[in-house]
Amino acid sequence: MGVTRRPHVVILGGGFGGLTVAKALAKAAVQITLIDRRNHHLFQPLLYQVATAALNPGDIAYPIRAVVKNQKNVRVLLAEARAIDTSAHKVVLDDGELTFDYLVIATGATHSYFGNDAWGPNAPGLKSIEDALEIRRRVFLAYEAAERESITAKQQPWLTFVVVGAGATGVELAGALGEIGLHTLARDFRRIDPTQVKVLLIEGRDRVLGAYPPKLSAAAQRSLEKRHVEVRLNAKVTAVDADGVELTIGDRKERVAARTVLWAAGVEGSPVARTLGVPLDGAGRVKVEADLSIPGHREVFVVGDLAACACDGKPVPGVCQGAIQGGASVAASIKADLAARPRLPFRYKDKGSMATIGRTSAVVHIGRAQHHGFIAWLFWWVLHIFYVIGFRNRLAVILSWAWSWITFQRGARLITGPVGALPPVRDIGADGVPVMPRAAETVTVDREH
Amino acid sequence: MGVTRRPHVVILGGGFGGLTVAKALAKAAVQITLIDRRNHHLFQPLLYQVATAALNPGDIAYPIRAVVKNQKNVRVLLAEARAIDTSAHKVVLDDGELTFDYLVIATGATHSYFGNDAWGPNAPGLKSIEDALEIRRRVFLAYEAAERESITAKQQPWLTFVVVGAGATGVELAGALGEIGLHTLARDFRRIDPTQVKVLLIEGRDRVLGAYPPKLSAAAQRSLEKRHVEVRLNAKVTAVDADGVELTIGDRKERVAARTVLWAAGVEGSPVARTLGVPLDGAGRVKVEADLSIPGHREVFVVGDLAACACDGKPVPGVCQGAIQGGASVAASIKADLAARPRLPFRYKDKGSMATIGRTSAVVHIGRAQHHGFIAWLFWWVLHIFYVIGFRNRLAVILSWAWSWITFQRGARLITGPVGALPPVRDIGADGVPVMPRAAETVTVDREH
Repeated sequence: MGVTRRPHVVILGGGFGGLTVAKALAKAAVQITLIDRRNHHLFQPLLYQVATAALNPGDIAYPIRAVVKNQKNVRVLLAEARAIDTSAHKVVLDDGELTFDYLVIATGATHSYFGNDAWGPNAPGLKSIEDALEIRRRVFLAYEAAERESITAKQQPWLTFVVVGAGATGVELAGALGEIGLHTLARDFRRIDPTQVKVLLIEGRDRVLGAYPPKLSAAAQRSLEKRHVEVRLNAKVTAVDADGVELTIGDRKERVAARTVLWAAGVEGSPVARTLGVPLDGAGRVKVEADLSIPGHREVFVVGDLAACACDGKPVPGVCQGAIQGGASVAASIKADLAARPRLPFRYKDKGSMATIGRTSAVVHIGRAQHHGFIAWLFWWVLHIFYVIGFRNRLAVILSWAWSWITFQRGARLITGPVGALPPVRDIGADGVPVMPRAAETVTVDREH
Repeated sequence: MGVTRRPHVVILGGGFGGLTVAKALAKAAVQITLIDRRNHHLFQPLLYQVATAALNPGDIAYPIRAVVKNQKNVRVLLAEARAIDTSAHKVVLDDGELTFDYLVIATGATHSYFGNDAWGPNAPGLKSIEDALEIRRRVFLAYEAAERESITAKQQPWLTFVVVGAGATGVELAGALGEIGLHTLARDFRRIDPTQVKVLLIEGRDRVLGAYPPKLSAAAQRSLEKRHVEVRLNAKVTAVDADGVELTIGDRKERVAARTVLWAAGVEGSPVARTLGVPLDGAGRVKVEADLSIPGHREVFVVGDLAACACDGKPVPGVCQGAIQGGASVAASIKADLAARPRLPFRYKDKGSMATIGRTSAVVHIGRAQHHGFIAWLFWWVLHIFYVIGFRNRLAVILSWAWSWITFQRGARLITGPVGALPPVRDIGADGVPVMPRAAETVTVDREH
């Protein structure tokens, strides 16, 4: 079938995958509609720093419109794709629909509770700015709640932070939570003993950062333990409620009382993939062809976290580089079509992976090179600055990090949103425990006018 | 009555008034409990810049705990005061209560709809970070909604922004909204004609910035008009709903269709004042004695926006300086009591007032000096940087402003929270209006595998 106009390329998702496709087609004879349910591109690798108050939301988000404002063949639409009708070449949106000649699905992944969605309200995950602000609210409110309690036993559940899943996000979150307890808040409270702060990192496998070489996993674990993070390996979470989690370690069950549980365990493909009518893998990702198109539809591509693809027999990891390189490959295929050249299969070049564990520690794995410690951390720092979109944001991130690094403080430590239920305030001395040290001085207060 | 221990000073509110009292009592033989329902001090004069995406929330907020962390005689409590029992010397909190020897009420003001609280959901005001984010969400979503419409008449209500009240906040908001339409978003949309953006500033009195000399009011109005803000004087808002506002100008009624209405018209004392059992003025503020204490209770003070007080017969305005100087006076009175010296009455020194209207324009009124334009704007800039708390925040504000000033962009342009109902998406050409310019080229898309 021939269409006598510029083909309409619809891209779902303004993450690294979608933006790469749009930008690589800047000079192609196509019309592009870039759709995202958010108005901003989000630099997800630094999202945990918003959750732990090191960065402001605006520092790692950038308006999608501003990214492509000078690219005349793109229009941006704030909308959510609900379903895809591949045979009719239509995307069904929250309100309306769009026809396409080419479709690129780059809607990424969401967190998965492995069938236990009821755990969600008590164990928020970290995928959006809203998620990060919710985690930030819970973490810092927990300290406020602990300050209201005067008995250590009652403070303990507030001062216990459980992170489920020791992949990069879990390790980074746990490391940051450890440092908040050790450094950031040490002098801010009057009733909290910083040594009582407990961060637990729960992992089902036998080591942290399972995707890294064992040597780096061990280094990461040592770094975490230096930050007072307790790592629990071979442990499964078998229940989550408002009061804590239940762990199953072998045959043994253990209950951990914690008011703050964070979920960094599983990811699951964005739900729109289920409407495609093509095979998905166990994590809900689309099993794509060698050119990242879906079976039976050369004009529909999937890139980034939502694509289950392999290169040289190895699965392509769900990281920025996978999305960026996938996006470039899809744009090249579309251009090949326009020029009536054959498409090339997607080739993934592993540029390495890295995770940071705190102020001066990171692990870096590039090809055969394995680094950990301060040099790895510097490398992580430079590379992340480079990938943050926008000159202003880059400066803001540098400034915030430099300041945090020097002062041990976190600049975005505000609690927004509802406060919720905190322990009751007891009057000075009412529960027998003095709230503040009392001086022996005698002062007369004249209460009469 | 004599109390043989350090007197307990309870301060409600961590704004400029409350913090000034706490810090001025650092070396006094008192125990201080500083209570706020937020964990952060907020620099309210720059809140409109968060609402208009020039600054991040974290840039103008600072954790109250961090401000007083080295001051050993202060504890900070996240709590909300519900009522005050002056005869029992008790503050009733959201959950619990506290007794005091001295009480300083510095809970400020909230916005008032003059008895029309039903207008609130359709005309948010600007007092907290949450308010600012809500306004930011509405303003930038309105542009997204307009981009979904292809007919100018249907875009118009989305591109009309009404600001009610032309005091400093209203003038600053309207100026920023005008610039967003003219500069920030000019190239970001494909279907929006920037000349269609309409900002209306509604004022009941006969000039903007009624508290300033008429010459500066006129200069401010000219500056606003340059930014395409339409100023409506002597106009009363007599109805607000989801579709717009009804204005009454003299005998004439007029309906303005607008999806975004912002409220900057009235303030009202914080509700806790009503539980004091002392006379309030028409705006719900406490009529205080010369030393800022309340009638009949020398040990209970009110400072800042919640205090209705006069100095040399002139009312003290609800600005930062009023709160700071009031706080210093109250701390001095408490110290005078401790030293058995007589209290001095509160003397307010007017250090001037200023408002900014956009990129290079401000009005400044100091004593007999009246300035407007660029020099006034520079002065505004330097002074506001000075009053932002925290070195990091100061740097962040300088960086954001410098960047915005050079690029005409706004760095914090992210929409968070629910998207709500937007106009339906029409397919390309479906409504007879082309969505994008069409090229005449002929391209054949092969849809078969």
